[in-house]
Amino acid sequence: MAITRVGFVGLGIMGAPMAANLLRAGFIVTVWNRSPSRTQPLVEAGAVGADSPADVAAASEVTISCVTNSGDVEEVALGPGGVIEGAAPGSVYIDCSTISPETARKVAAALQAKGVAMLDAPVSGGDVGAQAGTLAIMAGGDAATFERCLPVLQAMGKTIVHVGPNGAGQVVKLCNQIAGGLNLLAAAEAVGLARRAGVDPEKMLEVVSAGAAGSWMLSNLAPRAVRGDYTPGFMVDLMQKDLRLVLDAAHETHTPLPGTALVSQLFQSIQADGRGRDGTQSLIDAIAKLGGR
Amino acid sequence: MAITRVGFVGLGIMGAPMAANLLRAGFIVTVWNRSPSRTQPLVEAGAVGADSPADVAAASEVTISCVTNSGDVEEVALGPGGVIEGAAPGSVYIDCSTISPETARKVAAALQAKGVAMLDAPVSGGDVGAQAGTLAIMAGGDAATFERCLPVLQAMGKTIVHVGPNGAGQVVKLCNQIAGGLNLLAAAEAVGLARRAGVDPEKMLEVVSAGAAGSWMLSNLAPRAVRGDYTPGFMVDLMQKDLRLVLDAAHETHTPLPGTALVSQLFQSIQADGRGRDGTQSLIDAIAKLGGR
Amino acid sequence: MAITRVGFVGLGIMGAPMAANLLRAGFIVTVWNRSPSRTQPLVEAGAVGADSPADVAAASEVTISCVTNSGDVEEVALGPGGVIEGAAPGSVYIDCSTISPETARKVAAALQAKGVAMLDAPVSGGDVGAQAGTLAIMAGGDAATFERCLPVLQAMGKTIVHVGPNGAGQVVKLCNQIAGGLNLLAAAEAVGLARRAGVDPEKMLEVVSAGAAGSWMLSNLAPRAVRGDYTPGFMVDLMQKDLRLVLDAAHETHTPLPGTALVSQLFQSIQADGRGRDGTQSLIDAIAKLGGR
Amino acid sequence: MAITRVGFVGLGIMGAPMAANLLRAGFIVTVWNRSPSRTQPLVEAGAVGADSPADVAAASEVTISCVTNSGDVEEVALGPGGVIEGAAPGSVYIDCSTISPETARKVAAALQAKGVAMLDAPVSGGDVGAQAGTLAIMAGGDAATFERCLPVLQAMGKTIVHVGPNGAGQVVKLCNQIAGGLNLLAAAEAVGLARRAGVDPEKMLEVVSAGAAGSWMLSNLAPRAVRGDYTPGFMVDLMQKDLRLVLDAAHETHTPLPGTALVSQLFQSIQADGRGRDGTQSLIDAIAKLGGR
Repeated sequence: MAITRVGFVGLGIMGAPMAANLLRAGFIVTVWNRSPSRTQPLVEAGAVGADSPADVAAASEVTISCVTNSGDVEEVALGPGGVIEGAAPGSVYIDCSTISPETARKVAAALQAKGVAMLDAPVSGGDVGAQAGTLAIMAGGDAATFERCLPVLQAMGKTIVHVGPNGAGQVVKLCNQIAGGLNLLAAAEAVGLARRAGVDPEKMLEVVSAGAAGSWMLSNLAPRAVRGDYTPGFMVDLMQKDLRLVLDAAHETHTPLPGTALVSQLFQSIQADGRGRDGTQSLIDAIAKLGGR
Repeated sequence: MAITRVGFVGLGIMGAPMAANLLRAGFIVTVWNRSPSRTQPLVEAGAVGADSPADVAAASEVTISCVTNSGDVEEVALGPGGVIEGAAPGSVYIDCSTISPETARKVAAALQAKGVAMLDAPVSGGDVGAQAGTLAIMAGGDAATFERCLPVLQAMGKTIVHVGPNGAGQVVKLCNQIAGGLNLLAAAEAVGLARRAGVDPEKMLEVVSAGAAGSWMLSNLAPRAVRGDYTPGFMVDLMQKDLRLVLDAAHETHTPLPGTALVSQLFQSIQADGRGRDGTQSLIDAIAKLGGR
Repeated sequence: MAITRVGFVGLGIMGAPMAANLLRAGFIVTVWNRSPSRTQPLVEAGAVGADSPADVAAASEVTISCVTNSGDVEEVALGPGGVIEGAAPGSVYIDCSTISPETARKVAAALQAKGVAMLDAPVSGGDVGAQAGTLAIMAGGDAATFERCLPVLQAMGKTIVHVGPNGAGQVVKLCNQIAGGLNLLAAAEAVGLARRAGVDPEKMLEVVSAGAAGSWMLSNLAPRAVRGDYTPGFMVDLMQKDLRLVLDAAHETHTPLPGTALVSQLFQSIQADGRGRDGTQSLIDAIAKLGGR
Repeated sequence: MAITRVGFVGLGIMGAPMAANLLRAGFIVTVWNRSPSRTQPLVEAGAVGADSPADVAAASEVTISCVTNSGDVEEVALGPGGVIEGAAPGSVYIDCSTISPETARKVAAALQAKGVAMLDAPVSGGDVGAQAGTLAIMAGGDAATFERCLPVLQAMGKTIVHVGPNGAGQVVKLCNQIAGGLNLLAAAEAVGLARRAGVDPEKMLEVVSAGAAGSWMLSNLAPRAVRGDYTPGFMVDLMQKDLRLVLDAAHETHTPLPGTALVSQLFQSIQADGRGRDGTQSLIDAIAKLGGR
């Protein structure tokens, strides 16, 4: 039987437009947010406000969360007033946050003991993708749960892939952050050489983007930094949070990631300048600083 | 007056299809190659064979070369029987090889003394792009010469940008190799973590490619390596030749490029295994080797 | 009044010889270890066995601990049956473990509320230095406490420096691990080039050790690895534990440490081969592996 | 028969005191320098001035050179008026410069064809070691020539090791520069963390130097940089010249040296600030700059 009632916990820069897209797709949506003021616009758009994640879960066949870190997910899912207290057996919990694969597996196991299935389904694509409903969604969990929830996920994203059991969604999101970070370093070093060798970096980016060295970062973020625009997109402090999850996972699996380790150290250079709330395109300035500009 | 006669020197894996596209576009094409056997197919397609680069230049308003390294370009352009001996004042020499910006400037100066203009116009896009006529072309030289030669370049490429004076085309190509190398490292480390954390790397690549961490390398080369296909594309030995040009330029301009330096060292790991003629996607194995697989 | 009664908690490869040196120096020594069997040799040598860290502290003017990680120190100092339960106001607790500066400060604050002073006094010099009583000791805490405890520290070490307030001892130990790790990488890369360029690495080490590129690691550990001797010294797994403390401290203070981050990734390569219990000199094999041998 | 007549070409900051030590040891010394003014003090001390390297060689059983780079050695040894024109069959040429192993082998072969043996014998220990006669000397060449020249080498150095055939001396010198560079990075990152974590770097250096993380660089150069003293010692520009020889040799032998590549990029950061003539201890500022101080 098709899912009609969906809950949403965490109405931040990503969660709010994701919940709005669920409404637009015709789902009955119940919402909760830690600071209640963010609930208002959704309620005005037709969502039902609830008093806790437990209340959201009690009203929903599928409850989605999108919060900041592993601790937040544990609290929302398993803490007092959490999803686990309200979710009926047979319902599903989908977490779209970026957290450690280990926490995802731990939460899934705790919910499963109550008959509640879980998907770890982190997303990529930024606020723009959240608004447009074109997110890439990488889902871990059992295949039947994934299939059942697909219509819900399709209301929020475009490229939706079942990548393995619980935890696998988070592993793939960490792979995504590895690639994103090194693609940014690629842009930063290319801009670095262009500038010091006296070539206009905008022209360089224009032509390099069109060939085999092109990337989303080179086309979309690098031109911003070259023009001095550091508004996030995605903040350095959050990227560093994710890169620590990456390096922790690398440590646990003994996977040497020398490039990613370098990227993380260079982002610290940006943070050392008090610019942790700038967008990740500021990595370009870590290379520029090394080069004396 | 529109250019009608074009010469081509260096009919390798890139040059032969580029020359064929010039014929297809209606130019009268004169060709020469060090080993004459490669001339035959072009002559059969309508090109005129010549006895030396000088002869090619004598027959052409624009003479193009596409050879391997700085030494080759110096010989083809300035050596005995070289372009400089045959080119008429007012004609143009376009070099599409990847060489040092310094050599490009030196050759341009020598030709200018004879009234011959030069463009350094290296390309990106591989043999596939050369055949399809969709190369990215990054051109250095004076603007008037660039404008005059644009119809010739348009027969071979799609994204064609005038990036600055002589040498600037090569600088931009070096930026292209920086970005390409680090995008490959991005793919290698993402695959490395996926494998060791027990996630199917093909599914990871599918979903990561669709989001903000996507790149040409991740979409096109990484899946080959994951399936064990190391056929080049672009050979590791040639990539290393280009990365040395990059690191030389970085040295001369005092531009710190820590990521690119790491990429170059990791490619040495592939060469140390006797795999310098594999495609650059084998960088994935340098990370795998470090990780014990 | 001079200190006469000293307690020791944690009689491992470092702690046991350190306690023995205290006995030898004439102190009355009370000891405790998690697995009681390790207490026996000390008791035979004249120490008094106790039932808990609290009992040790109750019998001692100065209680020393030497355990594995931050959690162990918290338990030994502040847990049930911990030092805090037995230590008299005016007594001193000295922790010689390598832990996070943050934990050191936290434990110091908890003890200070009970009138017990603390020194964080990690050591360097290995089991050899512990046995010989020639350890380097880097102490954080207030100067008066340091002065008062100096005779105790002098029974165990040779170079003993008061480096600042609580936590500073641990910061300096982390600096020590940074330097040690990179000095090992220095040895690994020097050996790597010697081998691949066909030069006897033992002769290389002999002469390089004698000049401006000399180091303790190059003289003492590198020759072992070259001869295929990987017995620890100091185990890779413990070094990695320490390097994570380093990288955590770097993260918190936004201190970019690109070299140390690389060292840590290379040690993961050794761990990936199941060699985490080998000595740190095995870093030489991470470079050798990259190089195809 | 014992050697009595020794020639010296290149009386710079290293060569002049080395020649003086030969005089002091009782050898008859003939000297030449490109700029003649530097010859004067040696002549006043008892040396004989000559008009060219060929004249020096004609007057000497053993001719030593100590110049800057591979090109200088080729010119002094094989160029017009070079050693090869004056040296008698059976005489020996010893080059103490740091050059590529390849050039050393090439010069040795050219001289051997004339019956002149060669040792490549680069040195470590700086101007201080040159003056004190305590240099480390790493010699490549045949064993009999090495034995015969040992009394000459002993007048200039203390640790003198025959490391293999021609070229091996230079390989070992490159290993020396690898180790020296990374030991400096060790010092730089240790100082970096100490500073940002609020610990006095001089106290840190004092205690770390005494333990297993100690090195010549940490004891001798790092304290200078911490006090703001950047006088060379050994200039950054010369270190970079040597590191390029290292990375060239690594490239030719396919030896991955990720740490050394990083060191070289960081020295470029110092050069980018126009400080190439500062001492190598300024590497500490590359890390400080990244960290924003």
